[in-house]
Amino acid sequence: MTPRVAIIGAGPCGLSQLQAFEQARLKGADIPEIVCFEKQADWGGLWNYTWRTGLDEYGEPVHGSMYRYLWSNGPKECLEFADYTFDEHFQRPIPSFPPREVLYDYITGRAKKNHLRRYIRFSTVVRQVEFTEGQFRVRVKDLVADQERVETFDFVVVATGHFSIPNLPKFEGIEQFPGRVLHSHDFREAREFAGKDLLVVGSSYSAEDIALQTYKYGAKSVTISYRTAPMGFKWPEGIEEVPLLTKLEGKVAHFQDGSSKKVDAIVFCVGYQHNFPFVEDSLRLKTKNRLYPGSLYKGIFWMSNPKLMYLGMQDQFYTFSMFDVQAWYARDVMLGRIALPSYEEMAADIAHWQAREESLANPFEQIDFQKDYIVDLADQVDYPSCDWELTTELFKVWEHDKEQSILGYRDKVFRSPCTGTEATVHHTPWIEAMDDSLASFLGN
Amino acid sequence: MTPRVAIIGAGPCGLSQLQAFEQARLKGADIPEIVCFEKQADWGGLWNYTWRTGLDEYGEPVHGSMYRYLWSNGPKECLEFADYTFDEHFQRPIPSFPPREVLYDYITGRAKKNHLRRYIRFSTVVRQVEFTEGQFRVRVKDLVADQERVETFDFVVVATGHFSIPNLPKFEGIEQFPGRVLHSHDFREAREFAGKDLLVVGSSYSAEDIALQTYKYGAKSVTISYRTAPMGFKWPEGIEEVPLLTKLEGKVAHFQDGSSKKVDAIVFCVGYQHNFPFVEDSLRLKTKNRLYPGSLYKGIFWMSNPKLMYLGMQDQFYTFSMFDVQAWYARDVMLGRIALPSYEEMAADIAHWQAREESLANPFEQIDFQKDYIVDLADQVDYPSCDWELTTELFKVWEHDKEQSILGYRDKVFRSPCTGTEATVHHTPWIEAMDDSLASFLGN
Repeated sequence: MTPRVAIIGAGPCGLSQLQAFEQARLKGADIPEIVCFEKQADWGGLWNYTWRTGLDEYGEPVHGSMYRYLWSNGPKECLEFADYTFDEHFQRPIPSFPPREVLYDYITGRAKKNHLRRYIRFSTVVRQVEFTEGQFRVRVKDLVADQERVETFDFVVVATGHFSIPNLPKFEGIEQFPGRVLHSHDFREAREFAGKDLLVVGSSYSAEDIALQTYKYGAKSVTISYRTAPMGFKWPEGIEEVPLLTKLEGKVAHFQDGSSKKVDAIVFCVGYQHNFPFVEDSLRLKTKNRLYPGSLYKGIFWMSNPKLMYLGMQDQFYTFSMFDVQAWYARDVMLGRIALPSYEEMAADIAHWQAREESLANPFEQIDFQKDYIVDLADQVDYPSCDWELTTELFKVWEHDKEQSILGYRDKVFRSPCTGTEATVHHTPWIEAMDDSLASFLGN
Repeated sequence: MTPRVAIIGAGPCGLSQLQAFEQARLKGADIPEIVCFEKQADWGGLWNYTWRTGLDEYGEPVHGSMYRYLWSNGPKECLEFADYTFDEHFQRPIPSFPPREVLYDYITGRAKKNHLRRYIRFSTVVRQVEFTEGQFRVRVKDLVADQERVETFDFVVVATGHFSIPNLPKFEGIEQFPGRVLHSHDFREAREFAGKDLLVVGSSYSAEDIALQTYKYGAKSVTISYRTAPMGFKWPEGIEEVPLLTKLEGKVAHFQDGSSKKVDAIVFCVGYQHNFPFVEDSLRLKTKNRLYPGSLYKGIFWMSNPKLMYLGMQDQFYTFSMFDVQAWYARDVMLGRIALPSYEEMAADIAHWQAREESLANPFEQIDFQKDYIVDLADQVDYPSCDWELTTELFKVWEHDKEQSILGYRDKVFRSPCTGTEATVHHTPWIEAMDDSLASFLGN
């Protein structure tokens, strides 16, 4: 009997998995019966922007964490699909840091070209995955029909991402704060904070970008509170970094160094949970956000039952292209082209990678680490060749550019590791580009 | 073997059910083994205020829909427990319209007095209820331990309420609205809207109260948009009612009568879903918000499997006291003291009540209808006597008071149907009472 594969999620990871199978099928392989379950009404995952926050029209948690006016914070050349380049999609060079709608167009462009929609059941949420009697029992709910059903599968690929379930500790005095309080997951519209004194808690990408964006769209001041260390960029006047928030008294935020600041609103950019409530305990990944999560052989296969796979669960420098390589590898295991080693060998391999991860001293070494991880997978599959060494160079230049100018780094251009094409300069510097539509971006 | 009862939720309905069993036990009855599962870390349901919105610290949907500065919008005399009066709890008369914290203290005061906490497993969410082989299979997750388990029960009482899962249709232009957009479920802090032009969409209790509250705390203007008919109260200057929102263009809201208004923020007070994703299809109540939902005999028993019960699923004039009477009745069925009729008789009884419901012409008749429903149950159980006729009079006076003065009706006093005690006048008129704490309320 044809084996059955369930893919959970039709965001970048799920679409990579569909693409991997479809490429094999086009080359003549017998592929399994594939069903991709997508909670949202359309594909693209996080990149499928929604104005909704909290719960959606069916009472399900809103997946989207993206906001208006979001521009890529890394060069597009570092996330390019090797089998569907930016040149192929746009038919001409474009700038290196596109806004969300442009990347959404690119990701879904490949899926459209390959007719991947036929594999996907939209508005269908996975309620539970159990392994019993040698098969996965997957209970799903068709949200439109308001009906549940159970199906069985031989393989399950979890591709639901890890930037959708907010992590939010409680801070003293928060119940009494007389203004807006939100997690970055619920941030949508920077102009809401124009003229306000804003507190941003956090020191990773969300904090950096939301601080910059609210500044760009007219916040009166942005105070960024860090736990461990400041980001340390050369912030423009109006943005400053302070130590950790200790408590709130009315509108006054107090920080660990004894300083304080009256603020009108607080955005908590304190990260997300790896949270998979639909997976039974014995199959459920539990990890913090790190480059090499435990329990996953090759960063993919659930060690104690490798017919269950997780894609994209790493802390990420690389994104779409890494998901592709993972998906190609997972596909080849499912197709029997790659044999997995024993449990002990898998455990030793994970331990080896994690030991190296723990020795990494700086972002440059982290970038090399993730590149090596990708190359380790890419070498064993037929994913089109790509100049992975060049991507690490680009990431390092990008890190340098950010140190030089946190407002200006998005105006730089990079060369594609797939086609060698040099990006164009955008018609408007990022700090002045208020229109983030695809039409505006491509307009000049 | 002792039968087992699962109660889902430790809000007002769940606590009523625990109270009903505990009273029987104290009078010498053999009661079942009872387990009450509560998702939150403490009891009180909606009345357990949380500053969180969207998803909670475990990634679960936030149950709470209550906001700061919320005062009861109906007289407390109409929701009084007959077996635990306000006089008993506060040891003196208090005003008729208490703020949330005072009612929370009252509800949980009865539960504390009766040591009901021992029946409850907190931070435990019910994932699924199935009926199989003559028993309910209930899968729950201990959120603190991050572990699931399955238990079996003979009876299940769903007491999770129907004011937690927002209903929110899409309006044209909402994706581009350059300001805050939220459902009333996520409303917490009125002062956030001080100085702003606010649009409130809806025409029921949430719309009425959030419009009044944001006005009270300094909104520049409040425009209320209704679908069918205006509420028609004598609004103060600064609040007005307009027909349904048809579309948004930038900050400009357009209404069905061709008028428009530039607004800074939008609160959608458009109601909630009866949404029970944890109940398998064949057991799941599907209803709109109405006085007599279908499929529930006596408004409680799931007709096709009456060992499953739902409490408080009605559209509500009566609340806590109605939940008590339902819980007493449900208890007596579970204890075998009341026998349920045949399926056909149950269906006929529901049809009879629904036919009457559909003939009701105005709120006064609706109040009488719900009172008759309660008396029908109360007559068959040992719930302490209460002057139900008086409560209908109070509700009618209250409706009249609201017509007379939407800003002043909360300053009125009522007489208890349980003790005859006359409420006191609060030290500060509601429109001037900015402090909603229990300490302030009881302070004079």
